[in-house]
Amino acid sequence: MRSLLDAVQSGALAPAEAERRLRESLDTEHLGYARIDHARRLRQGFPEVIYGQGKTPAQIAGIARAIAARGEALLVTRTDGASFEAVAKVVPDAVFHEQARLIERRRPGPDGHGVILVAAAGTSDLPVAEEAAISAEVMHNRVDRLYDVGVAGLHRLLAEHQRLSAARVIIVVAGMEGALASVVGGLVSVPVVAVPTSTGYGASFGGVAALLAMLNSCASGVSVVNIDNGFGAAASASAINHLA
Amino acid sequence: MRSLLDAVQSGALAPAEAERRLRESLDTEHLGYARIDHARRLRQGFPEVIYGQGKTPAQIAGIARAIAARGEALLVTRTDGASFEAVAKVVPDAVFHEQARLIERRRPGPDGHGVILVAAAGTSDLPVAEEAAISAEVMHNRVDRLYDVGVAGLHRLLAEHQRLSAARVIIVVAGMEGALASVVGGLVSVPVVAVPTSTGYGASFGGVAALLAMLNSCASGVSVVNIDNGFGAAASASAINHLA
Amino acid sequence: MRSLLDAVQSGALAPAEAERRLRESLDTEHLGYARIDHARRLRQGFPEVIYGQGKTPAQIAGIARAIAARGEALLVTRTDGASFEAVAKVVPDAVFHEQARLIERRRPGPDGHGVILVAAAGTSDLPVAEEAAISAEVMHNRVDRLYDVGVAGLHRLLAEHQRLSAARVIIVVAGMEGALASVVGGLVSVPVVAVPTSTGYGASFGGVAALLAMLNSCASGVSVVNIDNGFGAAASASAINHLA
Amino acid sequence: MRSLLDAVQSGALAPAEAERRLRESLDTEHLGYARIDHARRLRQGFPEVIYGQGKTPAQIAGIARAIAARGEALLVTRTDGASFEAVAKVVPDAVFHEQARLIERRRPGPDGHGVILVAAAGTSDLPVAEEAAISAEVMHNRVDRLYDVGVAGLHRLLAEHQRLSAARVIIVVAGMEGALASVVGGLVSVPVVAVPTSTGYGASFGGVAALLAMLNSCASGVSVVNIDNGFGAAASASAINHLA
Amino acid sequence: MRSLLDAVQSGALAPAEAERRLRESLDTEHLGYARIDHARRLRQGFPEVIYGQGKTPAQIAGIARAIAARGEALLVTRTDGASFEAVAKVVPDAVFHEQARLIERRRPGPDGHGVILVAAAGTSDLPVAEEAAISAEVMHNRVDRLYDVGVAGLHRLLAEHQRLSAARVIIVVAGMEGALASVVGGLVSVPVVAVPTSTGYGASFGGVAALLAMLNSCASGVSVVNIDNGFGAAASASAINHLA
Amino acid sequence: MRSLLDAVQSGALAPAEAERRLRESLDTEHLGYARIDHARRLRQGFPEVIYGQGKTPAQIAGIARAIAARGEALLVTRTDGASFEAVAKVVPDAVFHEQARLIERRRPGPDGHGVILVAAAGTSDLPVAEEAAISAEVMHNRVDRLYDVGVAGLHRLLAEHQRLSAARVIIVVAGMEGALASVVGGLVSVPVVAVPTSTGYGASFGGVAALLAMLNSCASGVSVVNIDNGFGAAASASAINHLA
Amino acid sequence: MRSLLDAVQSGALAPAEAERRLRESLDTEHLGYARIDHARRLRQGFPEVIYGQGKTPAQIAGIARAIAARGEALLVTRTDGASFEAVAKVVPDAVFHEQARLIERRRPGPDGHGVILVAAAGTSDLPVAEEAAISAEVMHNRVDRLYDVGVAGLHRLLAEHQRLSAARVIIVVAGMEGALASVVGGLVSVPVVAVPTSTGYGASFGGVAALLAMLNSCASGVSVVNIDNGFGAAASASAINHLA
Amino acid sequence: MRSLLDAVQSGALAPAEAERRLRESLDTEHLGYARIDHARRLRQGFPEVIYGQGKTPAQIAGIARAIAARGEALLVTRTDGASFEAVAKVVPDAVFHEQARLIERRRPGPDGHGVILVAAAGTSDLPVAEEAAISAEVMHNRVDRLYDVGVAGLHRLLAEHQRLSAARVIIVVAGMEGALASVVGGLVSVPVVAVPTSTGYGASFGGVAALLAMLNSCASGVSVVNIDNGFGAAASASAINHLA
Repeated sequence: MRSLLDAVQSGALAPAEAERRLRESLDTEHLGYARIDHARRLRQGFPEVIYGQGKTPAQIAGIARAIAARGEALLVTRTDGASFEAVAKVVPDAVFHEQARLIERRRPGPDGHGVILVAAAGTSDLPVAEEAAISAEVMHNRVDRLYDVGVAGLHRLLAEHQRLSAARVIIVVAGMEGALASVVGGLVSVPVVAVPTSTGYGASFGGVAALLAMLNSCASGVSVVNIDNGFGAAASASAINHLA
Repeated sequence: MRSLLDAVQSGALAPAEAERRLRESLDTEHLGYARIDHARRLRQGFPEVIYGQGKTPAQIAGIARAIAARGEALLVTRTDGASFEAVAKVVPDAVFHEQARLIERRRPGPDGHGVILVAAAGTSDLPVAEEAAISAEVMHNRVDRLYDVGVAGLHRLLAEHQRLSAARVIIVVAGMEGALASVVGGLVSVPVVAVPTSTGYGASFGGVAALLAMLNSCASGVSVVNIDNGFGAAASASAINHLA
Repeated sequence: MRSLLDAVQSGALAPAEAERRLRESLDTEHLGYARIDHARRLRQGFPEVIYGQGKTPAQIAGIARAIAARGEALLVTRTDGASFEAVAKVVPDAVFHEQARLIERRRPGPDGHGVILVAAAGTSDLPVAEEAAISAEVMHNRVDRLYDVGVAGLHRLLAEHQRLSAARVIIVVAGMEGALASVVGGLVSVPVVAVPTSTGYGASFGGVAALLAMLNSCASGVSVVNIDNGFGAAASASAINHLA
Repeated sequence: MRSLLDAVQSGALAPAEAERRLRESLDTEHLGYARIDHARRLRQGFPEVIYGQGKTPAQIAGIARAIAARGEALLVTRTDGASFEAVAKVVPDAVFHEQARLIERRRPGPDGHGVILVAAAGTSDLPVAEEAAISAEVMHNRVDRLYDVGVAGLHRLLAEHQRLSAARVIIVVAGMEGALASVVGGLVSVPVVAVPTSTGYGASFGGVAALLAMLNSCASGVSVVNIDNGFGAAASASAINHLA
Repeated sequence: MRSLLDAVQSGALAPAEAERRLRESLDTEHLGYARIDHARRLRQGFPEVIYGQGKTPAQIAGIARAIAARGEALLVTRTDGASFEAVAKVVPDAVFHEQARLIERRRPGPDGHGVILVAAAGTSDLPVAEEAAISAEVMHNRVDRLYDVGVAGLHRLLAEHQRLSAARVIIVVAGMEGALASVVGGLVSVPVVAVPTSTGYGASFGGVAALLAMLNSCASGVSVVNIDNGFGAAASASAINHLA
Repeated sequence: MRSLLDAVQSGALAPAEAERRLRESLDTEHLGYARIDHARRLRQGFPEVIYGQGKTPAQIAGIARAIAARGEALLVTRTDGASFEAVAKVVPDAVFHEQARLIERRRPGPDGHGVILVAAAGTSDLPVAEEAAISAEVMHNRVDRLYDVGVAGLHRLLAEHQRLSAARVIIVVAGMEGALASVVGGLVSVPVVAVPTSTGYGASFGGVAALLAMLNSCASGVSVVNIDNGFGAAASASAINHLA
Repeated sequence: MRSLLDAVQSGALAPAEAERRLRESLDTEHLGYARIDHARRLRQGFPEVIYGQGKTPAQIAGIARAIAARGEALLVTRTDGASFEAVAKVVPDAVFHEQARLIERRRPGPDGHGVILVAAAGTSDLPVAEEAAISAEVMHNRVDRLYDVGVAGLHRLLAEHQRLSAARVIIVVAGMEGALASVVGGLVSVPVVAVPTSTGYGASFGGVAALLAMLNSCASGVSVVNIDNGFGAAASASAINHLA
Repeated sequence: MRSLLDAVQSGALAPAEAERRLRESLDTEHLGYARIDHARRLRQGFPEVIYGQGKTPAQIAGIARAIAARGEALLVTRTDGASFEAVAKVVPDAVFHEQARLIERRRPGPDGHGVILVAAAGTSDLPVAEEAAISAEVMHNRVDRLYDVGVAGLHRLLAEHQRLSAARVIIVVAGMEGALASVVGGLVSVPVVAVPTSTGYGASFGGVAALLAMLNSCASGVSVVNIDNGFGAAASASAINHLA
């Protein structure tokens, strides 16, 4: 804000333009049940993403309409078919990805500088891996998918070393013991964002085993997001990939 | 017991000898604070092992003397110098391993059939790895030590593939994320006994992260013992290694 | 790999044969959603086992077809009738075990050297016990089933001491307080693989009580697998039972 | 209170005597830092027991003096030598049990009807077992001690079946996997009060493993007190043993 | 067993009668999926109780038939209507208590000496309270029910002090913060068996809050059973109530 | 009670009136499954609130009828449509709030002195926020709702600083990381009652993450109620708002 | 801020005065290791309180000096003698309370409207109770102390009903099972702030048992602060007690 | 490796040079207790970092000497003065940072492209913040320190918005409720690496509260490392900051 005011003072910026920008940066739309943060793209490079869980289809559709009405890209996470039906009525070009539980509508935007590689340990981890991959694409990143390369058959990963080397950021998606994050982390110099999944049973405790493993990774350069949070990994990776 | 009685009935065994064997199989010595199970070697192939924690030096020495008085091998785990001083007075040929926190006295016995490989992820895991290795030796096994082969530098392990292949049982000792167990488990066909260690801090929760990782290993053939339980891994591995 | 190359150098192995073996040892088949590790039988003595949970019936059937197409044995764990329907279409001789939640197809292979005894504490533990027993059979082991011998009626177990003695490996399956593992572990000299089950309620915490009990067993020679992981116990026991 | 008033009304009790009893039943002494419940023996059969942890030696001595001044028995739990020094100055006939961490002074009282058997799994459990045994004695019960009868050597327990049968209540003290409670519970018809101890390490989690095992006992008639709470088990057992 | 043999030796017991008793004390019936411990009534005063959870209706009916065929009382816990339908076909006089989730058939037996009071904190705790009350009745005890006396309205409990005083054992059933156990424990001298229930939400963690509260009771003479384990409390209370 | 008796003694109160008040203060109505504490309004300013979970519709309706029969206000929490149907038959003017899971009937009463502000972090937190807001209204408080002001778009909250300043008590409702409580707590001088919600997934552990965050708030003046306990927050806030 | 600007615009406030107030409301002092929030008294009614744990004596003294230099009251929590020595050199009139672990210097301020009652369950809870009581006094509240009124001797509390009734806010301090909060909460209509303490052992888990009990209180109007957080309770109670 | 071989085949690389590079990439030095991964700088851009905890001073010094002998930079984490004494004898230009518990020796290397901002919530978090800041400097990054900007005094952070905007990566260090990560995450578009600290007590559970809060951040672009893992955050931030 101060830089805005300085620019006005120095004459570099017209007061009217400064006012417009300021307004925009505080732009909030009230729906009663929601207070949409339309300034988020300005602040963070991507519009507000709708967390679908715990919202009614009507609430999701209402927020989606308000975002789309500004011409923005749309992303709804952890959602389902019933919500998509409601959204499709007000945002006709929205698309639903059932496995990834995402609704999205893409809009042009500045591309990330490199490739985000999404490596998944097993087939059961695909819903989360796809949530990450599609979210990253919607946020304007090129994505490479490397699936079913868990450490029980290590040669499957080692054989793809070139794809690991070619990535600018790597998202590792793994459940059970989550060892893939450490193994990948030890092979590369780029940042690794690890996503523990709830794949497993018994003492996996809904993904806690993988989460703890990833937090305790002996490889450096590995940071972690919430269990099953493919979107969060994509957001971190995209922020990294869009750095100048 | 029935086989004993059958042998007596059939005349294959003299009643006196049968009585002697029966007595031996129930042989218990009372010290007031302890009830020594002298029949354990008969039942399980190795005399009672003294768990040192929570016992006074005098109690440990008393039990050790009673075991040694039968001419048996001696093994005290999770112990310290004060207890060793007390033991050394009554079992002069006892030996103390400070890093491994073991007191032991070896006695001849039937050798295991192959080699037990003890693989440790990092230097900080050595106290537990040595507890496993020395315990296995005291129980009459050849032991190969492969230390500091954690997954952050995977080539260190892969370069030693021959030693992995040569083992009959593998004990994997690892803290932090415990990924080494899965990686080793995926490379070999022999049984792997995994020991999580308390190496780590924060969300390692005193070894829980490694324990959960090992219990959730995606590699098959991996079973697990308690956190820091090097002795327990050695006991399992020795039981396996002594199978005909 | 080095032994292969040495054999080529010494003339003991034809280069073409060496190439064939090498290829085989890295043999991976890509299905998009899966990367089948066809080399696993070479490395570990049994083909890749399909973890059914979190996979769609179509994915399971696709992987099963690819494995069966190589003439391999097939084992799918934690699966259900819907997946079996899909598998049966592409692997007609597959068999479904509802209680054990397994799909399997057996193929000849080298027999284990002794008997694997599966001891279960109660009738409610049978699904897990059967997962262990059938998995062990599919992996070419003779299996003896000793069910409902929980410690509340100890004489039921003691009366079967001969079957305990006759086993080469013992799998103990128990929920609730999981005491059976320690009691069996104290009676035998062979390795014991303990499987905690989720049988129980309240402070059993889905099997955690039994898991902790087994990890803290005062009997030596007991190692542990994940809660309800009958398959994992079978894999460990089979690895032990196939040791020369 | 109503029965008291009825007795007064009916002339069965003199008002003065009724007043005296009523006063006594609400008898509380204020020390500033403590409000001594002198009516507890009336209500519960034994005077207030001082929980030593978290109190200064001066506070413990002050409360002990007030209790002893009424001629009551004295019991301080979870205490130490420094507190004993302070207590001994004001209650000269107090006795300190270092292993059991108890200070006590006995007074005559109505004996319990049978024997309380204290069975402990291992030598490391003795501090808690002695806390139970001595507390029970101070509360006027005959106590039989059966120590080091853990399930790893089951015959040690079975050989003492007669002492189990002779008891009116059994306190089972065990750490690690706590299996002894279930085994004893399955052998007897009398009530069993189980005390988990913090004996163990790693996944014993300071006694949680034994606590959970005991709460999940498959044997009926087993109830449980807090980890290391030998006193609490004695109080329950004594209440049972004093029932007419 | 030794007393039996001594009696034979001394002529006090005919060998044939000794044999009959011995046989009976080891009486076990095999159903394949179950190994019924028919000697349990001899050992523990009540026949084997069937834990219904995790068993199929057919298994429950099979075990129930075998028990009823001996003329014994029958008790099935944690069961449902489907299992009752199966049981009713083979044990026509069995009765189902839906709220308490019990199937039972009563048989004459020695009465307990006093009254077991079942005190429940709230209406939501009634299923567990009724499990305790009916189980205790089936085990031949007089039962007094004192419901909805939680500590938020303390006068409701204090007004019933006479019923508390009249009981020989008290079962306290409470969820949420489980404070009722401590309050009752502080008012009476008889043993209190506390049952935490899963009543509550959020940080009650399925009854853990009440369980911990009860284990940490500042009142002495309180012991605890598993969450929602009304049957277990009844078994403990009945064992106490049947002591001579 | 003593003040009542003193008033009688001094003649300030007629004995008949004293008796009436005393009776009223102990007024309890027995329904068998419930013991209604009709004195609660006298003691606490609002009649007994019915916790709906774990009660049958018939039980809820029975209690509701008894409360309404006294002309009292009615509040049922954590309930559903089936229970409302039963209640509506006996309390025709009862109202059901589906999102908030409340049944209520309002009655005149003394108003609170200021405004209770209910601030919710996100749309998914509305069911709990509405439970708090409606409960507070039923308890005679003016309520201001400030929804969807989570910290990811901080300006949404800061822009409403005046409403924060105008409140006498603030209820903060937030799931996930629960940061809103600390941020609000740092901005105001009035008491803040924080309600963690179960909004979230994975490592939110059903609201535990938010609960811990709120308990560890670095802002002072923040106290916390159970996860999802909108009613409890309203009760605390109403007690504060009704202080003279 | 807007009200400030509005006042300037309307002429109600001189620009210079507005500037002074604005400056004051953002007043921050940088010490390198700390950024003192001197505006906190304006915002929250009491200056910044120093959390002593994890800070060096030099850091604490530096911050204390800066606060005292403004003539403000001083409060340091969770501190010790070494820090007091450092503070006393720069704030000579500071006072140290060893049991409560507080350093404080009082300054005149607006008194709270009523009495804050601090009720503690046992003598072992006094350090936390005193932290609450002294903190409340430093924040200008009259405090009544009611100690050792735990529920095991309920009459001790009931006998003091008048002091409960006379309070405007009640702080309940209790460890172990924390039942005192519910009992007090059920007796009064004023707000209750509950402080769980770490008094206890074993399954008290450092105060978790009491924390959970208090969060699940069946009495309404009870809110909770962190384990051992006497200061936090005082801050909440003081905020309540200072409401107009 | 393939690219190396391709380069040889195409003549772009001399075989001798290829051999030298290959050797280097597998360069491992054995010390018995350690297997130093000298290739790590090649693979990951920085030499192996020594985790000091659980290693003896002699072991740390031995590894440090071997690394320094190659002319590499040195970093030892979680270490102490005793280890520094040992290291200083063999690496004379090593430097010890007591607060940050680091030993380091810097070497020239490629600078990161922007500034890493380390924001810490409170003075008690400085040891971890300094571990992060110094580690980042040793890894060739410019670091800006923004300390004591916790959310209880939000204006302290907002006043420094320009420094937030100027950073290329932000490390947020916070204990207690860890809210700073979400607040910062909502203000910026660059990646945020959050470090929970163990600052706090009671229900902070050694940093778990902050860890969970950060994992559940409602702001996107936030990833998390282990509790107190300042080094890990620096490694992630440095990897990001060195991306082309």
